[in-house]
Amino acid sequence: MTGDARKSYSLGELAERFGGTVVGDAATRIRQVAPLETAGPEELSFLANRKYEKLLASTHARAVILGEEAREATVLPRIVCKNPYAYYARVAALVNPEIVPEPGIHPHSVVHRGAHVAPSAAVGAGAVIEEGARIGDGAVIGANCFVGRDARIGNGTRMYANATVYQGCVIGDRALIHSGAVIGADGFGMAMDEGRWLKIPQIGRVVVGDDVEVGANTAIDRGALDDTVIENGVKLDNQIQIGHNCHIGAHTAIAGCVGIAGSTRIGSYCQLGGSAMILGHLTIADHVVISAGTLVSKSIARPGTYTSVFPMSRHDDWRRNASLIRHLHEMMDRIRKLEGEIKRIKGK
Amino acid sequence: MTGDARKSYSLGELAERFGGTVVGDAATRIRQVAPLETAGPEELSFLANRKYEKLLASTHARAVILGEEAREATVLPRIVCKNPYAYYARVAALVNPEIVPEPGIHPHSVVHRGAHVAPSAAVGAGAVIEEGARIGDGAVIGANCFVGRDARIGNGTRMYANATVYQGCVIGDRALIHSGAVIGADGFGMAMDEGRWLKIPQIGRVVVGDDVEVGANTAIDRGALDDTVIENGVKLDNQIQIGHNCHIGAHTAIAGCVGIAGSTRIGSYCQLGGSAMILGHLTIADHVVISAGTLVSKSIARPGTYTSVFPMSRHDDWRRNASLIRHLHEMMDRIRKLEGEIKRIKGK
Amino acid sequence: MTGDARKSYSLGELAERFGGTVVGDAATRIRQVAPLETAGPEELSFLANRKYEKLLASTHARAVILGEEAREATVLPRIVCKNPYAYYARVAALVNPEIVPEPGIHPHSVVHRGAHVAPSAAVGAGAVIEEGARIGDGAVIGANCFVGRDARIGNGTRMYANATVYQGCVIGDRALIHSGAVIGADGFGMAMDEGRWLKIPQIGRVVVGDDVEVGANTAIDRGALDDTVIENGVKLDNQIQIGHNCHIGAHTAIAGCVGIAGSTRIGSYCQLGGSAMILGHLTIADHVVISAGTLVSKSIARPGTYTSVFPMSRHDDWRRNASLIRHLHEMMDRIRKLEGEIKRIKGK
Repeated sequence: MTGDARKSYSLGELAERFGGTVVGDAATRIRQVAPLETAGPEELSFLANRKYEKLLASTHARAVILGEEAREATVLPRIVCKNPYAYYARVAALVNPEIVPEPGIHPHSVVHRGAHVAPSAAVGAGAVIEEGARIGDGAVIGANCFVGRDARIGNGTRMYANATVYQGCVIGDRALIHSGAVIGADGFGMAMDEGRWLKIPQIGRVVVGDDVEVGANTAIDRGALDDTVIENGVKLDNQIQIGHNCHIGAHTAIAGCVGIAGSTRIGSYCQLGGSAMILGHLTIADHVVISAGTLVSKSIARPGTYTSVFPMSRHDDWRRNASLIRHLHEMMDRIRKLEGEIKRIKGK
Repeated sequence: MTGDARKSYSLGELAERFGGTVVGDAATRIRQVAPLETAGPEELSFLANRKYEKLLASTHARAVILGEEAREATVLPRIVCKNPYAYYARVAALVNPEIVPEPGIHPHSVVHRGAHVAPSAAVGAGAVIEEGARIGDGAVIGANCFVGRDARIGNGTRMYANATVYQGCVIGDRALIHSGAVIGADGFGMAMDEGRWLKIPQIGRVVVGDDVEVGANTAIDRGALDDTVIENGVKLDNQIQIGHNCHIGAHTAIAGCVGIAGSTRIGSYCQLGGSAMILGHLTIADHVVISAGTLVSKSIARPGTYTSVFPMSRHDDWRRNASLIRHLHEMMDRIRKLEGEIKRIKGK
Repeated sequence: MTGDARKSYSLGELAERFGGTVVGDAATRIRQVAPLETAGPEELSFLANRKYEKLLASTHARAVILGEEAREATVLPRIVCKNPYAYYARVAALVNPEIVPEPGIHPHSVVHRGAHVAPSAAVGAGAVIEEGARIGDGAVIGANCFVGRDARIGNGTRMYANATVYQGCVIGDRALIHSGAVIGADGFGMAMDEGRWLKIPQIGRVVVGDDVEVGANTAIDRGALDDTVIENGVKLDNQIQIGHNCHIGAHTAIAGCVGIAGSTRIGSYCQLGGSAMILGHLTIADHVVISAGTLVSKSIARPGTYTSVFPMSRHDDWRRNASLIRHLHEMMDRIRKLEGEIKRIKGK
């Protein structure tokens, strides 16, 4: 952990900012947040899941955040609230303020004179910003980033080092774009013509809403004709691939290594598990949960959890059972034949 | 979409350039291409699949591209041709010319004096080109790209911002290399020696043919001893991993998130679906199609489509059926036992 | 292959450096290593697996490295040793020394005056090193790399072009970090709060041990509260995603495209096959092998090989059998019913 000489806050001050009820000494001061197991005497911990309640007895935390139902589960000074995990997130952000560079354009960056950078924005060393691009108030463009011609980066948005936004793409406000992310590369579109692939120009853009997070090395392709759209509040983990003309609904969260093929429409408040693969031209309803590793080959019209994973076992057991997969049809035939025999025997 | 004041073309002009027959007013002018559903009065649309033929009745497109068999499916001015999708690709490229930077070496790039950059090539801000590297005629090296020692970038090839080509690698003509792509990193080779992994030097190169596209954040490793080879016309989507000493045959297309382990040989005109994984040291014939999410663990000698995906269902149904996978052997045993019993009963 | 005018070594010289016994003329000189099939008259080859023994008869190699058990399998000059593959790795490294840039800070890099770069380290063009960062003896920071505030790069560690290390992260000695790798981006942590995701600050670091290799475009996220830890000797291929607070045990090797979700603990000397996905909060024992494409959803307490892959077949066969997966329960019910019938028939 970084930053040791940080400011302290009393439980009373926290409750004033974030709500909740203090039980015990409201003057109790904390400097950091930590898990119950490792928290020390200046640290605030939290209980978000009652199955960890027994850890309250042994924690060295100075104070804890609890849900209403666990109000009396400890004698430690505590803040009682509706959503302890969200409360912890808010306190964590307060005691660990992000270090943001000073506004200004680094002398070793290359900003085209036809680009517009807000005076309150910061452009890092080696960043390249092309003609017509617009960088919003308080935005931070990290070292060696690239922002293409006519692209727009919203207010308060942060691009970390080595991130790339192609020409014409639009990023909303308060987005976080991590290193290695690539927004707006060409979609994978081509026509087979007499034995050769002919490239189809990708003339759409990527349009990203507000409060979106894009993980390290995630790629979002620009649209072929229309735009690829990422709505407000979408959270993308690392190593994700989003094909051209996809539309990701608001507040959907997608875990690492997921691939989404072109023109697929994912609803709002969906959750896609790691390494899932969603085929192209599908429509997934709101509030759908896709399990990790699942291959989605059909549209999904109703909320719920969907899965397509071969269960894991020791390799020898796997081999024994996997080999029978190829004989399922034969097994079914033998069952049918047996049923016929029984019928005949009983008929006698 | 970008670029609004674009040039217009008459159907007659298009037919002169690209062939096909104009039916209706050859003086009809269009400025852009668009799908049937969203096309407007200055736009040319296309019908590549007869299942969308009913959209012809309602489209606002000014004109359409059709196959011979659909010649009379509309009264709109039209171009009739053999391959409407390829025709559309050509028109799309004509009306949306790529904006290419002016030739020249940006003053904020770092080109070694022992490198050779063609006078007609463009090197962007922050690009670094090492000793002995050669950049071909009309090539474009994007901002903050890296081209290592003795690497060669072919004529008309374009590297987008933040792409990397390691030392000694060779890229053919007219290639497109998207941001975050890494060509020529070390293959994953090591020998276990008394409890430690010993690195095996990766002294081969990556050799990429002509007309190849490499998607964003795709990685192609250099060979261990011999080269990794990507033949002409191969199209690679984003987030792909190609291991050392692979050989990818001409005009093969590989979708996003595919992994190909070392020393595997993929034929020509293959298509690999998203998130497929091909194990190492295999040989895949020409014209093989691998379904998305498929794990290929054996060589494939004959063309065709191959699949290995557990079918998706609602999680509860999945759990019920997946749990039985572990009992397939037992099911088979019980079927065999039943067959024995029936035989005995009938024998009586 | 690069570098043609390389130094030659006699078998006697090699045996003096690396051990083993020379059989035949110890003055035999070689310049390069190569596979048995392609080796030429100045090249040393090796036999690591007796199934390739027949290649010894036809090889044009000048000499070979063999295990004790194959001592008499050829008449060529040879080095007999315990581990021919490891021996070959050592010779390959000797005859192909890595070209390392001259020490010094490139005038086109941006090193904060509050950073510390060892005089023997090399910092490439366009690299950006922030305040408080420390670059160790003999380290090489490639072109356009980024090293964040207070990060530490160990002695002899090499970052290739366009790699990124976020603030506060620690990389050990003799590590290799390939292009596009991102170490220390935020973990994927958030709390749902009244319909919106609230970001949880990621205040841990990534701590990487000695002799670690990180492949191209691999991402390792920083911890939420505690650190993400990669122990000594871990080898990571390309396109891997390691979530926050994971702990990867010493000498574990992970193939390309693997995803490991947050807070999972992988033992030492494990091997994870390509495209495997390990869910979060699991514990995997030492010496576990995970097959390519396997989804691990439970902790694994015992060494061994584990697999979860649907077997591949031609698509039509796959469809026929896959469709029956959804009827496994029904099959089991029909088997049970048959067993009941038989019992009744026999009871009569």
